[in-house]
Amino acid sequence: MKILNVDLGERSYPIYIGQGLLKQDLLRQHIHGKQVMIVSNETIAPLYLKQTQNLLDGFEQKTVILPDGEQFKNLEILNQIFDELLKNNFDRSCTLIALGGGVVGDMTGFAAATYQRGVNFIQIPTTLLAQVDSSVGGKTGVNHPLGKNMIGAFHQPQCVVADTDTLNTLEDNQLSAGIAEVIKYGLLGDKTFFDWQEKNIQTLLDRDPEALAYAIEQSCRDKAIIVAADEKESGKRALLNLGHTFGHAIETASGYGNWLHGEAVAAGMVMAADLSQRLGNISDTDVNRIIAITEKARLPVAPPNNMTSEQFIELMLRDKKTLGGKIRLVLLKSIGDAIITSDYNKDLLHQTLDSFLSKKE
Amino acid sequence: MKILNVDLGERSYPIYIGQGLLKQDLLRQHIHGKQVMIVSNETIAPLYLKQTQNLLDGFEQKTVILPDGEQFKNLEILNQIFDELLKNNFDRSCTLIALGGGVVGDMTGFAAATYQRGVNFIQIPTTLLAQVDSSVGGKTGVNHPLGKNMIGAFHQPQCVVADTDTLNTLEDNQLSAGIAEVIKYGLLGDKTFFDWQEKNIQTLLDRDPEALAYAIEQSCRDKAIIVAADEKESGKRALLNLGHTFGHAIETASGYGNWLHGEAVAAGMVMAADLSQRLGNISDTDVNRIIAITEKARLPVAPPNNMTSEQFIELMLRDKKTLGGKIRLVLLKSIGDAIITSDYNKDLLHQTLDSFLSKKE
Repeated sequence: MKILNVDLGERSYPIYIGQGLLKQDLLRQHIHGKQVMIVSNETIAPLYLKQTQNLLDGFEQKTVILPDGEQFKNLEILNQIFDELLKNNFDRSCTLIALGGGVVGDMTGFAAATYQRGVNFIQIPTTLLAQVDSSVGGKTGVNHPLGKNMIGAFHQPQCVVADTDTLNTLEDNQLSAGIAEVIKYGLLGDKTFFDWQEKNIQTLLDRDPEALAYAIEQSCRDKAIIVAADEKESGKRALLNLGHTFGHAIETASGYGNWLHGEAVAAGMVMAADLSQRLGNISDTDVNRIIAITEKARLPVAPPNNMTSEQFIELMLRDKKTLGGKIRLVLLKSIGDAIITSDYNKDLLHQTLDSFLSKKE
Repeated sequence: MKILNVDLGERSYPIYIGQGLLKQDLLRQHIHGKQVMIVSNETIAPLYLKQTQNLLDGFEQKTVILPDGEQFKNLEILNQIFDELLKNNFDRSCTLIALGGGVVGDMTGFAAATYQRGVNFIQIPTTLLAQVDSSVGGKTGVNHPLGKNMIGAFHQPQCVVADTDTLNTLEDNQLSAGIAEVIKYGLLGDKTFFDWQEKNIQTLLDRDPEALAYAIEQSCRDKAIIVAADEKESGKRALLNLGHTFGHAIETASGYGNWLHGEAVAAGMVMAADLSQRLGNISDTDVNRIIAITEKARLPVAPPNNMTSEQFIELMLRDKKTLGGKIRLVLLKSIGDAIITSDYNKDLLHQTLDSFLSKKE
């Protein structure tokens, strides 16, 4: 087992990474009250709920099972968690445990951030995407029909348990979606890690537990360094949104749940690389390496063909990083070196959009 | 104009108190972006919206008008604020302005706490209750059918503008409800202030601007000292809930909006005084002084007669201050000296409940 400490002063917490962690007594030490609410979904609960409950012997345990999918990440479904907490008289000393992917983690975290103005929570991410991404950063929230993650809060967990065994039941497209975020960490600041990924992409797709544990640890470590420097996203943290401004537009346009988040980010990173190249930053060779690893990871390298440039611009203007009508983007100077900027030639952005959208007609 | 600074480190902010403040250019210096959303309600908007808009010349201004009443303080109505923010592409640098009573303030503050994981907001409280109570403390949130203020966050405003002129349009019962909280500050820690109130209760009911400004300033000052010592309510801050555990039970049982918050708190303080006296703390004379000032302020001194003891206990168990099944109460040792405790004779609590509930049959 690897233990990675996310250093946030009094809000610091450990991430446990490895095989068989849901069989170990890790949770107990991080639960301070007597009441524990496990929040999971219809897909994950049949697989890992019993195992998790067994770890919580002696606590007052309750469970909420949410429907599975990004389309259910909204205020209405969030309210189901509040309903259960209140029906069972859960008090301020309770702990919420998120057992599932990113949607379960984000919603449980937001419920914990706002139930009685804040209670404790623990993350047990069961997808690669959630293990590499939602484990670090404290971002919680729900979607709004007009924009993704528009309603939320920063709220740090007591600990994160990333058991690589849970990835054995993950569908192939979900595994690839997680790899998209792993690739992101290489691209935005860790060239050595990207080089490793190029060599090990098939090993990751084959779900080799050691390769997975290494990829999770390295991604979380890269993210933790950035988050520790900028917990509330006022500066450098925005680097983590590489591919996300394009990606969120894809997700919103196609309806939540139709494109996986990681798939949209993968296409978004390719689009960001294309724009970076047009702006004279990243080289053709690097763009091709990015396209190649994305394709090998069985991820899309272009947005859905029914989207228009106008739609992209409109949706990107609504992005949380947009300030004063300027679309801020994370762009690449090279593999492993990213910048945040809203100062770029808008015509080239339109060229990028047009090239991807016409490609598909 | 009086300026009271609430000292919370980098989250410190001023409260402006006085007459004619909505005619002065106070807001501008506290708004950092270009986009401003005024949130008000159907009752207040016709009275003060235009005046407020005039203060915001040069900003991109939008407005949301909510229905008026505690029964609308829920997630569904909250979503109307998010709808407007997103439809108008409001970004993270926007400022929300709450123009109205406590409900508008709590909802606007919570929307600000959670829109894009947190934006700035300003409070312009237009009821005495909101001026003395919601101005200080950073508590924001909405109700749930199973409990009041159960969903929320701590979020501090940029400034608070308490214009006593806005109290001239307040209905009598709303004025009295505000006085209930003023009385609370005397009772829980400021005997001199309580003595002043006994002498000036009629002057306050007559809406004398100087008396009102003094009462607001003193209440905010008393509250600010407690909040500064305990921003997230882990200890001493719970003193502010004098009368509230009983009061919330009354509000929940009677349906939000039927009893005003201040009315429920008034009855709750009398009940807390009664229990304190049975426990051998406060004297008979003090209890009678509390009942007398409450009656003079035209406030109820008992709960609604259709409630039962069992209902009280059940609802109080769901209170946010309840921990491990023990109902924590704020009780009085004397006027101006309160304690927080869950260590009291439960039989005497039942005696208090029975005495008030049988009284009314």
